[in-house]
Amino acid sequence: MSKLWQKETETERSVEKFTVGNDRELDNQLAAFDVLGSLAHTRMLESIGLLDKNDLDQVQAGLKVIFKEIQEGKFSIEADVEDVHSQVELLLTRRVGDAGKKIHSGRSRNDQVLVDLKLFFRSEIQEIVKNTESLFDQLIDQSEEHKNKLLPGYTHLQIAMPSSFGLWFGAYAESLADDMEMMLAAWKVCNKNPLGSAAGYGSSFPLNRTMTTELLGFDSLNYNVVYAQMGRGKTERILAQAMSSVAATLAKLAMDACLFINQNFAFISFPDELTTGSSIMPHKKNPDVFELIRARCNKIQALPNEIALMTTNLPSGYHRDLQLLKENLFPAFKSLNECLEMTAFMLQSIRIKEDILKDEKYAYLFSVDAVNEEVLNGVPFREAYKNVGAAIAKGEFKAPASVKHTHEGSIGNLCNEQISASFKAVMTGFNFEKVDKAVSALIA
Amino acid sequence: MSKLWQKETETERSVEKFTVGNDRELDNQLAAFDVLGSLAHTRMLESIGLLDKNDLDQVQAGLKVIFKEIQEGKFSIEADVEDVHSQVELLLTRRVGDAGKKIHSGRSRNDQVLVDLKLFFRSEIQEIVKNTESLFDQLIDQSEEHKNKLLPGYTHLQIAMPSSFGLWFGAYAESLADDMEMMLAAWKVCNKNPLGSAAGYGSSFPLNRTMTTELLGFDSLNYNVVYAQMGRGKTERILAQAMSSVAATLAKLAMDACLFINQNFAFISFPDELTTGSSIMPHKKNPDVFELIRARCNKIQALPNEIALMTTNLPSGYHRDLQLLKENLFPAFKSLNECLEMTAFMLQSIRIKEDILKDEKYAYLFSVDAVNEEVLNGVPFREAYKNVGAAIAKGEFKAPASVKHTHEGSIGNLCNEQISASFKAVMTGFNFEKVDKAVSALIA
Amino acid sequence: MSKLWQKETETERSVEKFTVGNDRELDNQLAAFDVLGSLAHTRMLESIGLLDKNDLDQVQAGLKVIFKEIQEGKFSIEADVEDVHSQVELLLTRRVGDAGKKIHSGRSRNDQVLVDLKLFFRSEIQEIVKNTESLFDQLIDQSEEHKNKLLPGYTHLQIAMPSSFGLWFGAYAESLADDMEMMLAAWKVCNKNPLGSAAGYGSSFPLNRTMTTELLGFDSLNYNVVYAQMGRGKTERILAQAMSSVAATLAKLAMDACLFINQNFAFISFPDELTTGSSIMPHKKNPDVFELIRARCNKIQALPNEIALMTTNLPSGYHRDLQLLKENLFPAFKSLNECLEMTAFMLQSIRIKEDILKDEKYAYLFSVDAVNEEVLNGVPFREAYKNVGAAIAKGEFKAPASVKHTHEGSIGNLCNEQISASFKAVMTGFNFEKVDKAVSALIA
Amino acid sequence: MSKLWQKETETERSVEKFTVGNDRELDNQLAAFDVLGSLAHTRMLESIGLLDKNDLDQVQAGLKVIFKEIQEGKFSIEADVEDVHSQVELLLTRRVGDAGKKIHSGRSRNDQVLVDLKLFFRSEIQEIVKNTESLFDQLIDQSEEHKNKLLPGYTHLQIAMPSSFGLWFGAYAESLADDMEMMLAAWKVCNKNPLGSAAGYGSSFPLNRTMTTELLGFDSLNYNVVYAQMGRGKTERILAQAMSSVAATLAKLAMDACLFINQNFAFISFPDELTTGSSIMPHKKNPDVFELIRARCNKIQALPNEIALMTTNLPSGYHRDLQLLKENLFPAFKSLNECLEMTAFMLQSIRIKEDILKDEKYAYLFSVDAVNEEVLNGVPFREAYKNVGAAIAKGEFKAPASVKHTHEGSIGNLCNEQISASFKAVMTGFNFEKVDKAVSALIA
Repeated sequence: MSKLWQKETETERSVEKFTVGNDRELDNQLAAFDVLGSLAHTRMLESIGLLDKNDLDQVQAGLKVIFKEIQEGKFSIEADVEDVHSQVELLLTRRVGDAGKKIHSGRSRNDQVLVDLKLFFRSEIQEIVKNTESLFDQLIDQSEEHKNKLLPGYTHLQIAMPSSFGLWFGAYAESLADDMEMMLAAWKVCNKNPLGSAAGYGSSFPLNRTMTTELLGFDSLNYNVVYAQMGRGKTERILAQAMSSVAATLAKLAMDACLFINQNFAFISFPDELTTGSSIMPHKKNPDVFELIRARCNKIQALPNEIALMTTNLPSGYHRDLQLLKENLFPAFKSLNECLEMTAFMLQSIRIKEDILKDEKYAYLFSVDAVNEEVLNGVPFREAYKNVGAAIAKGEFKAPASVKHTHEGSIGNLCNEQISASFKAVMTGFNFEKVDKAVSALIA
Repeated sequence: MSKLWQKETETERSVEKFTVGNDRELDNQLAAFDVLGSLAHTRMLESIGLLDKNDLDQVQAGLKVIFKEIQEGKFSIEADVEDVHSQVELLLTRRVGDAGKKIHSGRSRNDQVLVDLKLFFRSEIQEIVKNTESLFDQLIDQSEEHKNKLLPGYTHLQIAMPSSFGLWFGAYAESLADDMEMMLAAWKVCNKNPLGSAAGYGSSFPLNRTMTTELLGFDSLNYNVVYAQMGRGKTERILAQAMSSVAATLAKLAMDACLFINQNFAFISFPDELTTGSSIMPHKKNPDVFELIRARCNKIQALPNEIALMTTNLPSGYHRDLQLLKENLFPAFKSLNECLEMTAFMLQSIRIKEDILKDEKYAYLFSVDAVNEEVLNGVPFREAYKNVGAAIAKGEFKAPASVKHTHEGSIGNLCNEQISASFKAVMTGFNFEKVDKAVSALIA
Repeated sequence: MSKLWQKETETERSVEKFTVGNDRELDNQLAAFDVLGSLAHTRMLESIGLLDKNDLDQVQAGLKVIFKEIQEGKFSIEADVEDVHSQVELLLTRRVGDAGKKIHSGRSRNDQVLVDLKLFFRSEIQEIVKNTESLFDQLIDQSEEHKNKLLPGYTHLQIAMPSSFGLWFGAYAESLADDMEMMLAAWKVCNKNPLGSAAGYGSSFPLNRTMTTELLGFDSLNYNVVYAQMGRGKTERILAQAMSSVAATLAKLAMDACLFINQNFAFISFPDELTTGSSIMPHKKNPDVFELIRARCNKIQALPNEIALMTTNLPSGYHRDLQLLKENLFPAFKSLNECLEMTAFMLQSIRIKEDILKDEKYAYLFSVDAVNEEVLNGVPFREAYKNVGAAIAKGEFKAPASVKHTHEGSIGNLCNEQISASFKAVMTGFNFEKVDKAVSALIA
Repeated sequence: MSKLWQKETETERSVEKFTVGNDRELDNQLAAFDVLGSLAHTRMLESIGLLDKNDLDQVQAGLKVIFKEIQEGKFSIEADVEDVHSQVELLLTRRVGDAGKKIHSGRSRNDQVLVDLKLFFRSEIQEIVKNTESLFDQLIDQSEEHKNKLLPGYTHLQIAMPSSFGLWFGAYAESLADDMEMMLAAWKVCNKNPLGSAAGYGSSFPLNRTMTTELLGFDSLNYNVVYAQMGRGKTERILAQAMSSVAATLAKLAMDACLFINQNFAFISFPDELTTGSSIMPHKKNPDVFELIRARCNKIQALPNEIALMTTNLPSGYHRDLQLLKENLFPAFKSLNECLEMTAFMLQSIRIKEDILKDEKYAYLFSVDAVNEEVLNGVPFREAYKNVGAAIAKGEFKAPASVKHTHEGSIGNLCNEQISASFKAVMTGFNFEKVDKAVSALIA
């Protein structure tokens, strides 16, 4: 491979192989965003006189064709090409000649990668948020649909109080709403423009970073160029933390599902085609999908720590270590999106057992309600408590005829509308339209 | 100890000792917040007829006295008392008699702890944000003050490009601004009311959760009661993630400081009374404070993972495991605040070496600028690059007389005003005044 | 406080407070070991002529008295004293005058701490191994005692195959045997002498490190002085990894216990005095002890990562960061030992339900055995499989009258003797006697 | 795909895709080991009458051909085949007909995977140990070669005491010796036979597990079948912990290298073809290889925690989650081996600066030695200390003419022979020959 920084001496082949690693495959995912960055950068270069109008026109036309090819799946990094940026430049130069080489003026590989990553992360966040919203809506619907189906509520994994599938579905919906607060923070951190920070110390060219910020639809800049470079690793960690929050919600839901489908609980089941089993073990319906959602999401929960371990105690300034962060992070986007989709897909087919609470195991679920009922009728709490205790001891306890929980967020008053409103309120913080509009304008 | 749930059998002493652990000491920090929760809860109880006006008045008066005593440092959990909640009830009952026992109606220990934690976390976030803001302001000031002091910028820890102390201080300021996005997300997650969720499945009492939400100054409710309980562990993890972001910024700054104070770099120094040393090693000035900031902050970076490991794969519903989350989290608040304060304190006394770049080691820092200068004068990039390369090879390279970086965020245009504006914009998201006002009203 | 390295300038009080942290309390645990180190070090000093015989005699006598006082709980670090080492020196000087000050010759604070830690870790490993051995023996006994009590075996948390309490207890015993392989590795890493490495670069004194190695009962030396210092942090991490292995075993056992005590499983129960509950929820027996064992052990599992995060990317040589490693590690020793003891204590009172498998839920547990039975009678596997499948489909399936598993490690052939032999084989690797003998000789 | 457990209903394609994941690619690495397991298993089956002699002969011949093909790189999992085990069976059945299907008798997919993994891990440990030994030998050689080249030793990253490249190389060698203690523990845990544990609850067939243990060259069995299954996840975590120990050593060495190659230190350099740079920045030699070794090794350090997060709080028995552990662990073997090789490769070309200590920065390195010299000449320590301090203050300090450190492990007495002996002693614990012999016999 030919590299700009190369002196007479060839880099040892083993060194080259080791340093490139599997970066080229991972970089494929950045191709479209690299082109977007160049579309904005070259327009800015022309505006400050570092590129003439004619070159700009050629370069813009060429880049747009490449962008289209990438979207059509026709792009790949050729055998001798070092990385995605070189490949884009090569394609461009083949198409428009020497003008293609001018797209590097005024930037360094460092800020080029930084902006590619930010654009890529924005796109991945959009996908995650979209899938989260779908799952949220479905959970709220299922909470409403199953709101009258009771199940035992456990504390210490001991049978404790009446609960309901309305509460169960709704709880996970509301959990996603809080997760989106973290994702919104990650979005805000991602949605700032590092382009123009060069190798992390800025440039003596009179760049117009505000212009590229606007062209790329960023909210703002990573102003300080040293900070712009410091954002590498940090942005990844923050994004991984936001993803880990969604992942933790899904993993817990999956754990519940694995428990509830277990035959000792047997609260829920799924059609045969969604489970694995055995013809000589007819009751066995292995919840592989939920087990794998759980495992994948726990893996995602480990990501922020991995990133921290790889970046901790590095002084400021670029280090090659940062390249390796892609390896587990990039696949995690796909994995989390699949988990969101599969969770929704599986829950669509959930079958909930009727009359779970009729089993005598659950008789004492209502003892607290019984105490409360006496209290509401004027009996002092400690006396009511003793009465119910005594009735239970004598085997004379009668559970109240029905559950009458009325306060906000309880079985009889799920507040799903409020939860939805709260979710939608977080959604408004993601200014996806602005971003989409800017991107569309760039490639138009 | 006497506990409500106790049957005839005494709990084994060893079991009791093991289960209580060091929870009582940690709980001391929750005392004031436990009283606040009870102040709000009892007013709500009275409003729905579960407490009569006379009892309410006594209870409110008693709780306010206890609150004051706590603030005066006069509170401690007595030897035979199980936890902070029991201690508060005991003090109250000593003061107002049986009315004191009624403060438990309509809640469970679970939601009582949940709300105590949320109130405590809000308070700790306020402290962290306040200290972060002070450090931010100082960093911006120092960035301005030292904006003309150049230092070498490194990539791959190799001398690369000119940088400045203006950039260095400013970069960490801007980093804190992004960290506050995460802290704001944590604040939003914390600032929702779980009170009324009882043991995680709600109550058959006609509680008015909206009323306690308003009284306690929460933004909103954790509506779904199952989710309210699910928030335990999750809230801690999210808050720890936000803290880890601030911690990562401080740790990196501390790493830079340890490197820059090293005699091979020798960019900065500190007065003797802020370092440790040796009279026979006169040049030795150990930066213990920065080393410990780094270590403490890396420890805080490990917290979210610890919390994840302790909560992963627990099905929904309360588990006693959650109690243990306090042990490392509570001391982390104090530790992070001390790190913020000590960073500011140390930097106030920083001494920056003059004319660092005069050393011949740094001669080639300006080679990129020299290339750019030719380009700006019309020489094609590759030719300019060759010219400079040749001049260097012949030993004839002359660095440009001065650094002329003018674009946004560069040495000559730090954009500290914009960075400050951006920090302040995040600050407006923290509605501390509303919270303070509600708390003041409760204890008035 | 007075410190040797102090120049004219007083260290800022806030700096001093921050750097000392809670090190003084933690250091109390090192006191006895610090004395042991000095007993050995001074004998060596005398042997190379750096201490005269008379001084040695005084110092030895004085140190032995201090050692005794520490063991009697009479030791504490006084208010103005910086650390445990200074306190020991102070006590010694009060007792024997200026001779007491000579114990520092030929060592630095760095190698003094290193050897204290190694001696302390050796002692803690002994305690953990002793407690592990007790639990192991008990588990093997209980495996034998309950070997005929069947329970369902789960895969994917789905009812799968017959298992037994013999297998269940025995599995955790065997798990501890493998954990001890890790602990033995940690022991070997700890049981090497760093004393004499001074500040990590050795000394110009003609020290006899082999002599202190023998006096302190170490297996060998950390020869290379740079490596001796590098062992700080590394030793802690390796020991924490070994502890995490034991912890993982206990946590899994605790998770099983929490599941089995749950009323939907109801395989085991515990006396009331070992659980918590509620008089109006008579079936509720909260397994707090197991929940806390689980949580504490998961916390211990997080330790190695915390240590890694605090030491990663520090170049070689001492850094003050290392001091902070004590904070979570020291309490973990106590916590793990308590978990080992409480697990044994709880299991002693376990009550196992009789005839668990009579429940119709478990009918198909034996279908694989039924297939195998046909196969052993000459029916080809696929045919046998179809036969059993058909019988089940028609509701005519009959489970075999009894479980006849005979191979090594199966229900009918637990191989507990072999497992015990294997555990004892690992035990022989810990040369505790040699260590105890050396320590006894030192203080005699 | 066709699967034995399949009922009439087809598994949803999306479910199938999600559950298979990228398992098929990873499984390729297990192919050879799967064949080895079957070679042993079928010989045992014949010995207990579950396979007739004629079938055994065919199966053995067929499997040996497949083994050879795998070693020649001719093996891959076909498009419609679920996993490596099915692919091997398919190839075998194509070759020997129905006899090929009988290799599954008496085992489950679970113990088949378990034994494949153990055999694979043994092989990977061998590779890691071999590469570690090469690096160790080289480091010892380089320690001897460069033993007279001094460099400053740092504490707190402050210039402190004289050190040497003899110490520096030797320290990392000795570190690897301790790492091998952990690897040996992992080896012992891996080198036990789980085959015959079936789905984790054993089998009603009269298997001879001792026979397969011997045939496969295992030290011993995982006796208890429940524990055998429990070993999944646990074995991976222990192995990852052992790998993380080697990784931590390499990462620290790489950090030192990056620091020492930095121009402010400039202690070492590397030929141009092993670094990357820039023709206009002639002094810039980016140590990409060391940066990537550091990053890769820190990534490996994160592995044990990831595994813990994915397995914590799973009750005993198989869960599908365990499948996902392969994803990061398998590539880590390759990565660690490459890091070991590249570290050795790079260090072979290291160039060490002569006379580093002549720089006046390092003048006071010898002040402690000067104090010691006076002490050895009979001056009391505190007086000697004052004398040297005074000389320094007056600018009259003269460093001793040479370094005279003579004790074990010091500059003048590196003890590399003893360190080598200690390394070789650990090596003897790995009984690779026994394993190799057993494998050779199986495929003969």
